[in-house]
Amino acid sequence: MASNSTWRAQAEAKRQSILDAIPEKWRLATPVPSATEVRDVTGSYIQQFLSKREIEITESDAVDIAAQTTTGRWSAVEVTEAFCHRAALAHQLVSCLHEVFFDAAIEDAKKLDAYFAEHKKAVGPLHGLPVSLKDQFHIKGIDTTMGYVGWIGTFQGEKEDPRFGTKESELVRELRNLGAVLYCKTSVPTTLMAGETVNNIIGYTWNPKNRLLSSGGSSGGEGALMALRGSPAGFGTDIGGSIRIPAGFNHLYGLRPSSGRMPYEGAANSMDGQSTVLSVIGPLAPTARSLTLLFKAVLSQQPWYHDPLVLELPWRDAIVEETRSLIEQAKAGNSTLAFAIMHWNGVDRVHPPIARGLKLVEQALQKMGHRVIPWNPPSHTTADQLLFKTFFMDGGVDIKHHFGLSGEPKASQVLIVEDGIELSVSQLAELNVAKREYQKQYLDYWNSTAELTGTGRPVDGIFCPIAPHAAIIPNQFGAVGYTGFVNVLDYPSVSIPVTFADKTIDVRPTNPSAALEEHIEWNYDADTYDGAPVGVQFVGRRLQEEKILTLTEYLGEEISRAVGAK
Amino acid sequence: MASNSTWRAQAEAKRQSILDAIPEKWRLATPVPSATEVRDVTGSYIQQFLSKREIEITESDAVDIAAQTTTGRWSAVEVTEAFCHRAALAHQLVSCLHEVFFDAAIEDAKKLDAYFAEHKKAVGPLHGLPVSLKDQFHIKGIDTTMGYVGWIGTFQGEKEDPRFGTKESELVRELRNLGAVLYCKTSVPTTLMAGETVNNIIGYTWNPKNRLLSSGGSSGGEGALMALRGSPAGFGTDIGGSIRIPAGFNHLYGLRPSSGRMPYEGAANSMDGQSTVLSVIGPLAPTARSLTLLFKAVLSQQPWYHDPLVLELPWRDAIVEETRSLIEQAKAGNSTLAFAIMHWNGVDRVHPPIARGLKLVEQALQKMGHRVIPWNPPSHTTADQLLFKTFFMDGGVDIKHHFGLSGEPKASQVLIVEDGIELSVSQLAELNVAKREYQKQYLDYWNSTAELTGTGRPVDGIFCPIAPHAAIIPNQFGAVGYTGFVNVLDYPSVSIPVTFADKTIDVRPTNPSAALEEHIEWNYDADTYDGAPVGVQFVGRRLQEEKILTLTEYLGEEISRAVGAK
Repeated sequence: MASNSTWRAQAEAKRQSILDAIPEKWRLATPVPSATEVRDVTGSYIQQFLSKREIEITESDAVDIAAQTTTGRWSAVEVTEAFCHRAALAHQLVSCLHEVFFDAAIEDAKKLDAYFAEHKKAVGPLHGLPVSLKDQFHIKGIDTTMGYVGWIGTFQGEKEDPRFGTKESELVRELRNLGAVLYCKTSVPTTLMAGETVNNIIGYTWNPKNRLLSSGGSSGGEGALMALRGSPAGFGTDIGGSIRIPAGFNHLYGLRPSSGRMPYEGAANSMDGQSTVLSVIGPLAPTARSLTLLFKAVLSQQPWYHDPLVLELPWRDAIVEETRSLIEQAKAGNSTLAFAIMHWNGVDRVHPPIARGLKLVEQALQKMGHRVIPWNPPSHTTADQLLFKTFFMDGGVDIKHHFGLSGEPKASQVLIVEDGIELSVSQLAELNVAKREYQKQYLDYWNSTAELTGTGRPVDGIFCPIAPHAAIIPNQFGAVGYTGFVNVLDYPSVSIPVTFADKTIDVRPTNPSAALEEHIEWNYDADTYDGAPVGVQFVGRRLQEEKILTLTEYLGEEISRAVGAK
Repeated sequence: MASNSTWRAQAEAKRQSILDAIPEKWRLATPVPSATEVRDVTGSYIQQFLSKREIEITESDAVDIAAQTTTGRWSAVEVTEAFCHRAALAHQLVSCLHEVFFDAAIEDAKKLDAYFAEHKKAVGPLHGLPVSLKDQFHIKGIDTTMGYVGWIGTFQGEKEDPRFGTKESELVRELRNLGAVLYCKTSVPTTLMAGETVNNIIGYTWNPKNRLLSSGGSSGGEGALMALRGSPAGFGTDIGGSIRIPAGFNHLYGLRPSSGRMPYEGAANSMDGQSTVLSVIGPLAPTARSLTLLFKAVLSQQPWYHDPLVLELPWRDAIVEETRSLIEQAKAGNSTLAFAIMHWNGVDRVHPPIARGLKLVEQALQKMGHRVIPWNPPSHTTADQLLFKTFFMDGGVDIKHHFGLSGEPKASQVLIVEDGIELSVSQLAELNVAKREYQKQYLDYWNSTAELTGTGRPVDGIFCPIAPHAAIIPNQFGAVGYTGFVNVLDYPSVSIPVTFADKTIDVRPTNPSAALEEHIEWNYDADTYDGAPVGVQFVGRRLQEEKILTLTEYLGEEISRAVGAK
């Protein structure tokens, strides 16, 4: 174990090397104002450092960008440089990057432009699209630290491993095949097991919309970078909410797919080999259709022939068509779509902005003509217990080893303790059975809603909070149950942005209705939360990602329109 | 723990109650001759106890029977009675049943006939088809013992469990929906972890084709019953070969699907909650197309809405069509199908009948015009180690508990010891990672054959032994590696019957070629094995059950024709 001074020096050197990799021309000339001075550094704040053309490019969504870059109208180099510049600014404003490799990205972009010039066609559907990655994915020549000081200059903590500097994760290989440009890796909380993003290398990743608050976690760097439009789309991972929380905290869309759809092969992880609740990869982006673009593009690479845990389930257009016809029917005034809303889970009481966000969604759904029913599922306390037993199953053996490589301390936000009790294999088998029984109960409950919807089908999806609160005050994230039950069930779930916390509205009502009182947590600071993004979660049935993404494109737009019209 | 005399008495009473449930008219009047007198009790031997009409019905395959019963040409009652009679005889000849409930079956058949009379249509695609089930499936009013004396009159060993006598497994519910008639449950080795079928209740399940030998295990009762045509089709389970071994040992077809296709929900099992290598349910039958009938019928019930571990993968006709067009092309003399043959796995040397069986398959494939290449995969020693670490992970805790309920002793054939060392969760995680890495290597190797086939595609399937030997001499089954590697990889695999051991041919050649010597085990008793069925295994890629079943229907027929023509 290295001494205290050693890990501090290593972390400091690494932190500096990230800043040093930013070209001089893109460095901020003056110190960033404090959060109390300037809470929100998105929009016009960051735009002041960018050209009009850079703003045009970086504020286009992935679908629009790909439409330009795959047809040669925009050069890959120009687009890549714009995002590199904006990502560099984002990092200086909220500390959201672990690795920057802009030179390599621009070299790759040049090759893509040359390919297009020669063949008059794109390499693939993501030709020239910059894609950011959470710092779990291995890229040739680039560190993967996952926030661990002990991983700097090693392969996942192994100093002599020949894969150091040479290995690429399966997703990276596929993204390159698709024509995507890789240019940065985003920050994570060390261990990944936290709803905020903090580590001993780059410190704390702040929320760009309200720098008093967290960007969420564990894909917090993705969330913060995208809130500042330093990335048009990227990939995070989710074992308890790590995609949906930062998506929700940063007014983004983020998909947690069912396990077995996206290739995790060759990516770093915590507690690798834990197979009760699998961490999964999913896309985050400012628009819903960007999630579809990325998800579908990866599936076109047939990842099941390269990752033994991926299921042979290509993108299913038939499900998209079927869902679209339900949407068309609804738009024509004859909706047979039905949704459930879970205003609270019976465990963690929600803050006023979250209660309001769900209410807005409920009103929007009703206005669209959909049937909305309440959601009274099997106990979510059980889901919480199953999730935490899973997280704690190795008693902290894995994280203790990796913190021990450098001697650095664990952040208080990490949900796992280093000296817990390790389960026996028999106890684990009991846990697996209990989890399966809970999944069966939930499945049966979902089926049972066919009797309530009036559509002849069970509900098409459920809406619920992402967390009891909007983007959280540092060190206060704890209740992972709103997202975690989805991981226990292995359902697809998307974060959909809805509104922002507003201290003038989100106050304790003088005469709260009994229904509202039931789920409102009054220990809430309206002033600090002011401006924090409020998202909701939209949950579907296992492996029905095509349906959920298609519905999200429609519902997200309609909700946004309905909320905006208020 | 009950005393020695208690468990013996309980087992004896249960054994007698099975015989007592056979109607007087179907009991054998004279003792069964010894195995040395009459080895083979299939065919004409069992036919002597049956009417011509009973023989016609019971020697039709499931597809032909369903064609008659779903159209009202044959009554469900007549078909059910014929199979009940033949199953009763089979049990008296080789001891292959754990439960008989012929009266309930005939009552169910009467209801099906009444339904057809009233509605002029079938309840479902299996209307009136008798289906046998391995004794892991719960049926209302019927015991499930899985061979354990301590489970008699309980729910999986729990005396006060309200599910006793009331619970039905998900597969049972679906089979009833489909119109199948349930009439018996077949024998298993206690714990299911053995390649022979033996327990303290019904003793040893003998091979009907050669009663000096084993029927295989753990779905040995299914195998023996079907060899005697006491069942047209049934379901077993497979965690290391438990469907394919008894199918191979009894000249049957048997499919081990990938995990996640057939519903295991609500069935009894050993080491429930062990999730490194999952036991899976699959059909066995005398014809390949019967496997397809059952598999497709179960999928039509959308089991993914009732079993949280089933994947939403309906029967995919598109894959069937694609495969059929490859077959048509081959039949027209332009095959682009390519197969690999693994004559031995580098671990367990095979007996002469097995080597000959594979040679016959190779010749048949070549005659059909397909490309045949050798199979030089990643080490199968690794697969063996991964499988046994998985089987042994709980140190025997589970089986010790269940044997302890009655105090009965464990049979020597059971692969697991009762006092082993239990893994820690961290060790299990390492095992899961090692397994995934092996799966990845195998996947890459399979992909790499695209360079060898000349078809532009990797091989379409691989042929290999099911075991080093044909149906085994009691107490000699040990090498589970030929089937077990498939469970580690989670690939679909079918047993295909090929030929029979023949003491006049399967002898040590006077001048063995070097290639033959490499994989032939000379410690082999040609006389005892004479007449034992010889099958081969046909292995496909994960979740490609539709392709494998479609190819099996074609290949099984062609191989049988080619072998018969010799």
